[in-house]
Amino acid sequence: MSGSLAVVGLGPGGPLTLTPEASAALESADALYGYGPYLDRVPARSGQTRHPSDNREEGARAAAALRHAAAGARVALISGGDPGVFAMAAAVCEQIEGGSETWRKLDLAIVPGITAMLAVAARVGAPLGHDFCAISLSDNLKPWDLIERRLDAAAGAGFVIALYNPISRARPWQLGAAFERLRRHLAPSTPVVFGRAVGRADEKVAVTSLEAAEPSAADMATLIIVGSSLTRVIARPGLAPLVYTPRSAPEAGT
Amino acid sequence: MSGSLAVVGLGPGGPLTLTPEASAALESADALYGYGPYLDRVPARSGQTRHPSDNREEGARAAAALRHAAAGARVALISGGDPGVFAMAAAVCEQIEGGSETWRKLDLAIVPGITAMLAVAARVGAPLGHDFCAISLSDNLKPWDLIERRLDAAAGAGFVIALYNPISRARPWQLGAAFERLRRHLAPSTPVVFGRAVGRADEKVAVTSLEAAEPSAADMATLIIVGSSLTRVIARPGLAPLVYTPRSAPEAGT
Repeated sequence: MSGSLAVVGLGPGGPLTLTPEASAALESADALYGYGPYLDRVPARSGQTRHPSDNREEGARAAAALRHAAAGARVALISGGDPGVFAMAAAVCEQIEGGSETWRKLDLAIVPGITAMLAVAARVGAPLGHDFCAISLSDNLKPWDLIERRLDAAAGAGFVIALYNPISRARPWQLGAAFERLRRHLAPSTPVVFGRAVGRADEKVAVTSLEAAEPSAADMATLIIVGSSLTRVIARPGLAPLVYTPRSAPEAGT
Repeated sequence: MSGSLAVVGLGPGGPLTLTPEASAALESADALYGYGPYLDRVPARSGQTRHPSDNREEGARAAAALRHAAAGARVALISGGDPGVFAMAAAVCEQIEGGSETWRKLDLAIVPGITAMLAVAARVGAPLGHDFCAISLSDNLKPWDLIERRLDAAAGAGFVIALYNPISRARPWQLGAAFERLRRHLAPSTPVVFGRAVGRADEKVAVTSLEAAEPSAADMATLIIVGSSLTRVIARPGLAPLVYTPRSAPEAGT
């Protein structure tokens, strides 16, 4: 059996942030699997088959890619950002654990990518410069009260918070509820960054405050960073402000 | 004034994970600044000056790079991993906020990279597949009791935890103390991953448990991932085990 599966992170989407390792994995694959809009970002190559699927079909997509690889093909399963962060790598592991014994013997590689919070942070300065966490706001896969408990724990202990999957048509109220929850812990002036599609034609990055943050400014492709009590905004004449969190925290309780 | 400063993430170190954007920024620079061992990873180019500095001189290094850029040069300041994660981007922002007014007008770009936790996670599966946080264990810049409070908050709320800067000659006991602290919250069998130098000749990645985790297995370049109560290990015949955290959390309290 010579098949293999590479789970490949495309990064935020532009070709300038695709690593050489990811490019090589895409180039050498016999078959590409992925969510349709992500697959559309990969140039077509003759002799390579393409297998797009819908959003929210991660388990089935992972299983299809594993089956194809187990049949002897070199398969690349693509993921936006980094495959290990709220993306396809965990879906593949879930399928391997519950699936065919042969899947455990497959040549499997996870190829990391620039995840959205790193790309958005880089655009505005260094908001993740101190301890931080990443929370998916999707309550499809976990109960909302657990998400609230994590928001409380993170904000209460001074972590900067990156929010993935903030909003969708089926989940319209969660982001607003998260902002409300965070307002219990953080000052109205706490910096908040909205960012989407970094490096692509439709890139949009905005800096606001927790007080002024509006859920309607986000869509399902938006990554949101909520600062800690130490996060600062530096005004710059003629340029966008810088947002950063200092490396040092002077005292406990902050 | 035509100077510029790019703060460039080298990723975990191998050329295969250096993004095209980072390569271009390094290639086009007149002057390279950075911690000596990181600078050594960048091939020399004629006409380009190199300004290595020691570890723990981030503020002075950032200021020197800013001065050089403000004088009209195209400067690249390099950072291991991602410059925004416990690295040079925050040091640059600190200097800009406290420094010369002209520094605020500089053409500044932060070029993201694959940070260590993503590279290490990719090597073993998907341990960061659910909510997670990143904590620097260095108590040079924050009090130890704040670090303990964050470990408590993160483990108590079910975050997977990535530990940066786990140990050094000047900080020999902190990693052991962190493991002890985490053992109050997490089962002895909780998966723990040690990883360093991913993609380089001296790469070393090991999977163990919280019970068996030994601080002596880490050095200052090691990144450690401590799982949550949901993190799982899949044995594979003839291959290293996979470590992953499922995308779904069934109930609050986990």
